[in-house]
Amino acid sequence: MSLIVQKYGGTSVGDAERIRNVARRVASTKEQGHEVVVTVSAMGKATDELVDLARSVTAQPDPREMDVLLSTGELVSSALLSMALRDLGVLSVSLTGQQAGIRTDATHGKARISQIDTGRMQQELDDGKVVIVAGFQGITDEMNVSTLGRGGSDTTAVALAAALEAERCEVYTDVEGIYTADPRVVPDAVKLAEISYEEMLELASYGAKMHPRSIELAAVYGVPVLVASSLVDAPGTLIHGGAEMEVRNKVAGVAYDTNVAKVTLLGVADRPGIAATIFEPLAEVGISVDTIVQNASVDRLTDLTFTVARSDLTRALGVVRDIAKDAGAREVASSDNMAKVSIVGTGMQNAPGYASRMFRALFDAGINIEMITTSEIRITCLVSEDQVKDATRALHRAFELETE
Amino acid sequence: MSLIVQKYGGTSVGDAERIRNVARRVASTKEQGHEVVVTVSAMGKATDELVDLARSVTAQPDPREMDVLLSTGELVSSALLSMALRDLGVLSVSLTGQQAGIRTDATHGKARISQIDTGRMQQELDDGKVVIVAGFQGITDEMNVSTLGRGGSDTTAVALAAALEAERCEVYTDVEGIYTADPRVVPDAVKLAEISYEEMLELASYGAKMHPRSIELAAVYGVPVLVASSLVDAPGTLIHGGAEMEVRNKVAGVAYDTNVAKVTLLGVADRPGIAATIFEPLAEVGISVDTIVQNASVDRLTDLTFTVARSDLTRALGVVRDIAKDAGAREVASSDNMAKVSIVGTGMQNAPGYASRMFRALFDAGINIEMITTSEIRITCLVSEDQVKDATRALHRAFELETE
Repeated sequence: MSLIVQKYGGTSVGDAERIRNVARRVASTKEQGHEVVVTVSAMGKATDELVDLARSVTAQPDPREMDVLLSTGELVSSALLSMALRDLGVLSVSLTGQQAGIRTDATHGKARISQIDTGRMQQELDDGKVVIVAGFQGITDEMNVSTLGRGGSDTTAVALAAALEAERCEVYTDVEGIYTADPRVVPDAVKLAEISYEEMLELASYGAKMHPRSIELAAVYGVPVLVASSLVDAPGTLIHGGAEMEVRNKVAGVAYDTNVAKVTLLGVADRPGIAATIFEPLAEVGISVDTIVQNASVDRLTDLTFTVARSDLTRALGVVRDIAKDAGAREVASSDNMAKVSIVGTGMQNAPGYASRMFRALFDAGINIEMITTSEIRITCLVSEDQVKDATRALHRAFELETE
Repeated sequence: MSLIVQKYGGTSVGDAERIRNVARRVASTKEQGHEVVVTVSAMGKATDELVDLARSVTAQPDPREMDVLLSTGELVSSALLSMALRDLGVLSVSLTGQQAGIRTDATHGKARISQIDTGRMQQELDDGKVVIVAGFQGITDEMNVSTLGRGGSDTTAVALAAALEAERCEVYTDVEGIYTADPRVVPDAVKLAEISYEEMLELASYGAKMHPRSIELAAVYGVPVLVASSLVDAPGTLIHGGAEMEVRNKVAGVAYDTNVAKVTLLGVADRPGIAATIFEPLAEVGISVDTIVQNASVDRLTDLTFTVARSDLTRALGVVRDIAKDAGAREVASSDNMAKVSIVGTGMQNAPGYASRMFRALFDAGINIEMITTSEIRITCLVSEDQVKDATRALHRAFELETE
């Protein structure tokens, strides 16, 4: 009997009617002859409400206690789902992260799973039950409740699938799958039947519906992940690492990200170690620097531009202005209305012509490229925020993704 | 260093401001040099809201899952209280029922505590922390979450005090203590400085602020319990079993209860076993019968009257009508507008005159007594509901309780 792990997000369990709907889906999977392990997020805005509650008590909630508090959101939804399943006559049991054997490190608020003791789950499965695991949480070696932070429930689902050697992990959400571009921006965007872990990682980094962390985990353990809608019956997108992926040799999708700000140090002395001088202090205060471009040196002076998340810009400028003098910079300029647009596809690196085709399409659409970066399977252009949706549409057309 | 266990009810932790207020009280107890273990109820109406949520998913929530769901209410309040304490610079840790080592039987929804493994609590206390235990919950031998049912948090508090050999258990609520009568009915009712377990048991059965179950536990383990207000600073009432109690020889208070209905079987054949014929079927459907009075037999026929909780009357009549024929009863009569008024005091049994003084006072107030029952420390009269408050005031005056 094959085992399937299913994950339902907060929207999918947002109220009593939706929880009953999820129960019917789980029951149907069970009827098809599978063993089923389900993990759920907290209902709708429950987590936000718990955060607000903590903030109303203290400006700086203790991280350990915050985890105890936040973990209750998933306990509620998993208990309710189990009730709904039993109402349908399906044997089920809800388990806390601890009962499910999910051990984590002690980094409260963003703990990482260290191992999963599957004993209790296996025993409940052997008893013929659907096992419902509260997502997003685990237990530390000191027997304290921990939470996994952003993308936590997706990570729980993939980790359970890996530990239980499930046939597949199914992630149900409020979208029908992974598209060649954001359908709100590109009306003729097409749902992908499949995508590689690596491509999904690049897309996820730009706002697609799964956290990169859970996809990395799926890639490491080779867990196939199906992303589909909990609200409509339609085939989703299968994320996997099949060999056929490597020869696809085609753009899989166009992604964009508007959470981008740009900082430029003008007239920096071009001497060894200058990059470290600037970027180490940023790293120390926890600011991630994304794209970095350094111009060719003129008279031993250069301009150095990098991007950060828009929400980090003010803090980044505070740090950079302090060190700009030491670096001999003439001026620090910044802009917070930038965006990134990317094409993603396995095999692009080995097939020339993608980059030039991308640049040509943007030029034809009248869009100026400020910076360019590439990875093995991605080419990203920094453009003005007000042009990024046009850019996305232009690239979707140029690479004929509507015929996917 | 002496250890004190404190319990705060749902009203006392009803919002962020009240939680901060409780934190200040706990901090103050800690500053006075005590070790402190705190147990809390769920915030305000949180438990009711969780019950409503379950009912919106299914008409008959599974009891095991209901316990998982309900247990989250106390997890939330205990985590918030710990945050508030840390905000005051007081080291603290919130523990789930499981982490606090509270083992129970597997009767979900009304589990009974079987033992408490104090290891984790002791270790946290040794580390100088205030230990906050989620009330109302424990863990079964099968490692499932259980809840203790009505009066659960009070029971948690007393059980913790017994297991940790605390100096005292302090129960903070929205009243200032135990009064000689309900102050809403008797304006010159007086707060008692102390009361015996037995007296408190009788008063609690009639609606005073602690569940009888927790008082029984306190009596068995000899835990002194202070009942006081969490909102005002005033001495409360100490419930204990000191030797001086036994010779008080005085009425401690007047209690009343309006949740009373009366059922009478007229013309029952007075033969052996007739009572069992009637009361066994009631017990089988879980209806508690309170006072029972059987009239002297005339012509081998008797009238049999008993009281039940008003909410049980309809069910009780359904059962009784079925068996009335077998018992040869002429008629079944009932009344749901009855009430009980009681005087409670240690040593009454050994000092004559209390009963006659009670009956005289009620007669002088023009109140008809329908039935009478007594225990070692209590005399109860069944009266019409619309006269019970007058009866309470008359008895309070007659036994000069305003001069307590």
